[in-house]
Amino acid sequence: MSEQFEQLERPVVKELDDILGKPFHVLNDGFIRVIDYMGNDSSIVQAARVSYGRGTKKRHQDRGLIRYLMRHDHTTPFEMCEIKLHVRVPMDAWRQWIRHRTANVNEYSTRYSVAIDATQTTEPQAWRLQGTINVQGSEGVLDKEKGKELTRKERELHDLSRRIYNERIELGVAREQARKDLPLCTYTEAYWKIDLHNLLRFLRLRMDEHAQYEIRSYAKIIGEEIVSRWVPLTWEAFTDYRLKGQYLSFHDKEIIKALIAGDKEKAVQLAEQFGFIKYKEGKLTMNIERLELEDKLKELGLNAPWHE
Amino acid sequence: MSEQFEQLERPVVKELDDILGKPFHVLNDGFIRVIDYMGNDSSIVQAARVSYGRGTKKRHQDRGLIRYLMRHDHTTPFEMCEIKLHVRVPMDAWRQWIRHRTANVNEYSTRYSVAIDATQTTEPQAWRLQGTINVQGSEGVLDKEKGKELTRKERELHDLSRRIYNERIELGVAREQARKDLPLCTYTEAYWKIDLHNLLRFLRLRMDEHAQYEIRSYAKIIGEEIVSRWVPLTWEAFTDYRLKGQYLSFHDKEIIKALIAGDKEKAVQLAEQFGFIKYKEGKLTMNIERLELEDKLKELGLNAPWHE
Amino acid sequence: MSEQFEQLERPVVKELDDILGKPFHVLNDGFIRVIDYMGNDSSIVQAARVSYGRGTKKRHQDRGLIRYLMRHDHTTPFEMCEIKLHVRVPMDAWRQWIRHRTANVNEYSTRYSVAIDATQTTEPQAWRLQGTINVQGSEGVLDKEKGKELTRKERELHDLSRRIYNERIELGVAREQARKDLPLCTYTEAYWKIDLHNLLRFLRLRMDEHAQYEIRSYAKIIGEEIVSRWVPLTWEAFTDYRLKGQYLSFHDKEIIKALIAGDKEKAVQLAEQFGFIKYKEGKLTMNIERLELEDKLKELGLNAPWHE
Amino acid sequence: MSEQFEQLERPVVKELDDILGKPFHVLNDGFIRVIDYMGNDSSIVQAARVSYGRGTKKRHQDRGLIRYLMRHDHTTPFEMCEIKLHVRVPMDAWRQWIRHRTANVNEYSTRYSVAIDATQTTEPQAWRLQGTINVQGSEGVLDKEKGKELTRKERELHDLSRRIYNERIELGVAREQARKDLPLCTYTEAYWKIDLHNLLRFLRLRMDEHAQYEIRSYAKIIGEEIVSRWVPLTWEAFTDYRLKGQYLSFHDKEIIKALIAGDKEKAVQLAEQFGFIKYKEGKLTMNIERLELEDKLKELGLNAPWHE
Repeated sequence: MSEQFEQLERPVVKELDDILGKPFHVLNDGFIRVIDYMGNDSSIVQAARVSYGRGTKKRHQDRGLIRYLMRHDHTTPFEMCEIKLHVRVPMDAWRQWIRHRTANVNEYSTRYSVAIDATQTTEPQAWRLQGTINVQGSEGVLDKEKGKELTRKERELHDLSRRIYNERIELGVAREQARKDLPLCTYTEAYWKIDLHNLLRFLRLRMDEHAQYEIRSYAKIIGEEIVSRWVPLTWEAFTDYRLKGQYLSFHDKEIIKALIAGDKEKAVQLAEQFGFIKYKEGKLTMNIERLELEDKLKELGLNAPWHE
Repeated sequence: MSEQFEQLERPVVKELDDILGKPFHVLNDGFIRVIDYMGNDSSIVQAARVSYGRGTKKRHQDRGLIRYLMRHDHTTPFEMCEIKLHVRVPMDAWRQWIRHRTANVNEYSTRYSVAIDATQTTEPQAWRLQGTINVQGSEGVLDKEKGKELTRKERELHDLSRRIYNERIELGVAREQARKDLPLCTYTEAYWKIDLHNLLRFLRLRMDEHAQYEIRSYAKIIGEEIVSRWVPLTWEAFTDYRLKGQYLSFHDKEIIKALIAGDKEKAVQLAEQFGFIKYKEGKLTMNIERLELEDKLKELGLNAPWHE
Repeated sequence: MSEQFEQLERPVVKELDDILGKPFHVLNDGFIRVIDYMGNDSSIVQAARVSYGRGTKKRHQDRGLIRYLMRHDHTTPFEMCEIKLHVRVPMDAWRQWIRHRTANVNEYSTRYSVAIDATQTTEPQAWRLQGTINVQGSEGVLDKEKGKELTRKERELHDLSRRIYNERIELGVAREQARKDLPLCTYTEAYWKIDLHNLLRFLRLRMDEHAQYEIRSYAKIIGEEIVSRWVPLTWEAFTDYRLKGQYLSFHDKEIIKALIAGDKEKAVQLAEQFGFIKYKEGKLTMNIERLELEDKLKELGLNAPWHE
Repeated sequence: MSEQFEQLERPVVKELDDILGKPFHVLNDGFIRVIDYMGNDSSIVQAARVSYGRGTKKRHQDRGLIRYLMRHDHTTPFEMCEIKLHVRVPMDAWRQWIRHRTANVNEYSTRYSVAIDATQTTEPQAWRLQGTINVQGSEGVLDKEKGKELTRKERELHDLSRRIYNERIELGVAREQARKDLPLCTYTEAYWKIDLHNLLRFLRLRMDEHAQYEIRSYAKIIGEEIVSRWVPLTWEAFTDYRLKGQYLSFHDKEIIKALIAGDKEKAVQLAEQFGFIKYKEGKLTMNIERLELEDKLKELGLNAPWHE
């Protein structure tokens, strides 16, 4: 083995070093802090080039290679970067967060220690209404007068819960049991460590407009304030291909093709054949896949011919 | 390839088929139901024998082979069995449960649906006291008179939380937000699917006496009622080697060896050298590792010489 | 809890039971056998409905729900199905196979047992030529006369390797060391168990035309012969959305939109701005992302305006 | 939230920085290089203390806390450290290596690039003999004269394989196919990134005397040269508790207890009852669990009473 290896230094990202440990505030009392990181955009390129071998080293420029990897779901090189965050999050949002299994976690233990004395509170104008199309989400807000009343009662409930918790602790009840009636919105803290590939999956799901407001607030900051500083080329590719991209199914493609060819009749016929269009008592029935396709058509400047 | 393969049938465990779908009740309103399973003790043996190859097929009997695998942490054959449970658990216990990442999970969504109207309630004599040696656990219970008062207030808090939740729902607040102040002990439900190896790891941690009472109650039933029926040979080996086994560190072994040789002086000297024994103002200071060793000595019928 | 639970039976898939244990032959001496499975299309629906709660049970029909889950990457319900295969594969293809980490594996051990006496052999007309555009793949085949010669030498090398292996074994050399010079194409066997979600990821990557011929041969059989029988609704959705679908990046969409609007000039301008089009000495330089876009345009019946 | 957070710097381990990029040579042509790392002993403590909460911060000293975590299998804080290695390994050893699924990997691709022209070669005195008790391992070596002959033939086979590979490449055969007959001992390279907890699991299995010589050679260097420099407190605890520790089953303990109490008769009786002792035609039959117990007895200075 004639190869010569030089002494290395750890890759440094100055933009991230500058904010190391600094809290980004989220919600009324949450935060995200970057504690440590491993690697940068170049580490992704370096790992990808091991796969491609030394011979092809110069063929790609870094940016082009990172975009290629992103486009083609060649995910392993992105796993070569790692980040560690310290977060403070309402337990209710943490319940969703922790579902991402490919991460390392140390959470504040309310068995060892007294529960953090902070809850997520809601401003009078911030009570969101139940979604009607997106049945799991929310749309619009409650009128402020009613909101005021809800906010007042929220505070009373928080106060009562805490008094009861404190009373139990003072009576000597085990912390692991005393906590049982704390509200779900009580803050917890955790160290959370994850590789870049899995972090991007987290962001794709949790920055999505269908994600719940609370976790979306965290995801946006992780993406826009942290990942964008850490690996700017990757962030750019992720934005182009994942956040702003669009998936077309075989059915979508067939209908779009017919529309591009100017054949509206065929497009409608295909939509019927694919089950997107059904009529009940002369009226078009609701079909989620068709509604989604209509959004995709709009994005491409096409009209849904069944509405004409 | 001259090998002949016969038509197969799926392995069946009659003892488990008999209870499929039947709820085992846990806590005041929880349950565990077996929904489905894959494999049995023979499947473990079958998988292990692929590793050992056909030539050595007769060398081990099934029971001996399973015990060998368990003893030597040859874990992959145990991954060849899989089980699916339907569970109803207080969210607070579910928070611990879900930390076992190597499982498949579908949880009841309180974004889609109204939260389950049930909470874990506490009997007056069931308020546990904070542990003093085991600082994360509990020891003994609160006296019943004080307990009565706590139970009364617990009920009031549950009622108030639910009234507030219902009021929000009626005003049209999004379910994802309305739930934010439900108590941690509100029940949730989930389908939980896991392979046998990872299930045994779950059981080892959660059947342990240091595990919290609530999750231990679930773990005990999974182990004693379900796994014992499903894979009796594996359950027996697990009990012998994991639940009732004991780990000795290098330090433990050296001290035990000295005691067996009858050399108490050396044992004490080693304990000092290993940092197990320290004196402060003439008194032995508290040292967790030494306390743990003392328990191990007791199990072997030996006395800790530093107490003589 | 007033809920009544009935006795359950394990879901059965007759089409799969019929072929349980039966080998599907692959390559010259490989096979795939289904050993066991858990769940079916209904199990996916069942798990998804736990998430959606009982209240919304009737809203979706099974097929519609499965398609919705597939389209929106709601992957956890697909994890509720599990399958176990027995496979015989050349080690070289197995090296790629095993990179899918989310599976349970027991492989034939050539430390315990004598290595399987079978290798992947190549017919004279089956020597594939190095790809030129797809630099990691192959295109076309070598002429048969040259192929004959390569096939002859392949056989000689296999024979020699085996003779040397056998000689070592007879001299008493440890099996773990004797095997060191076996060719990469020596067959190995394994039990391989994986959940449906991760199996579909495997299939998407390994059924792709860029996947190597050998592993693609296995993937096609798993998909078309096994998954299609096991979970037909899922297989249909997977085919529509994953195998025959198409991803559009933000850049792709902008250019397509301009073309649909009939504004070729703008489309070219955007392509330049996005870096898809560069000229060197008056000639369009090679750009992979542009070539990929051209394929997408073709699929939609659009022409690349920069070629006009 | 009144808490003040200070600007952080990334933890540095000077001893590791000093060797960053420097190859440790392994076998005839392999190496291990540290490329990057995240965290150190203090990061483990920091993460553990999030769990314990701020209130108990001073209770443990770092070393004591790390030992406690190791002893009690509190593994998550060790996951907070991460290391990235660049390794060159014979594919045959890599096959074992890659079975550790919880790692990130980018391997040199012999589809993209010409295969590395290096194989693991064997010195005449280094041909190991098949194990008899440890049927998967090796014991002793072949006599040197016979070894010379094997070494000569090994070289011939390596040369022939390479000539055939090169001939295929020159004829234009796809690299993905040309490689099919390379010997298993051909070197590959990879970037391998893993967290400390999973690395320790790797080391426990692969530093074990039952592990194959080749991978053990790599594991020893990772442990003794790299982990020992990186996280010295963790390495010390790992050595005491994992490498030099011993596990006693319930059965082991019962027999040892009887022996310590001086009751040999009972010990023998228990051994019979547990199935450790069986006689066939007046002779003690071979029983692996008993042989293992005998080793444990020896370590504690006890004699197996059934041999007296």
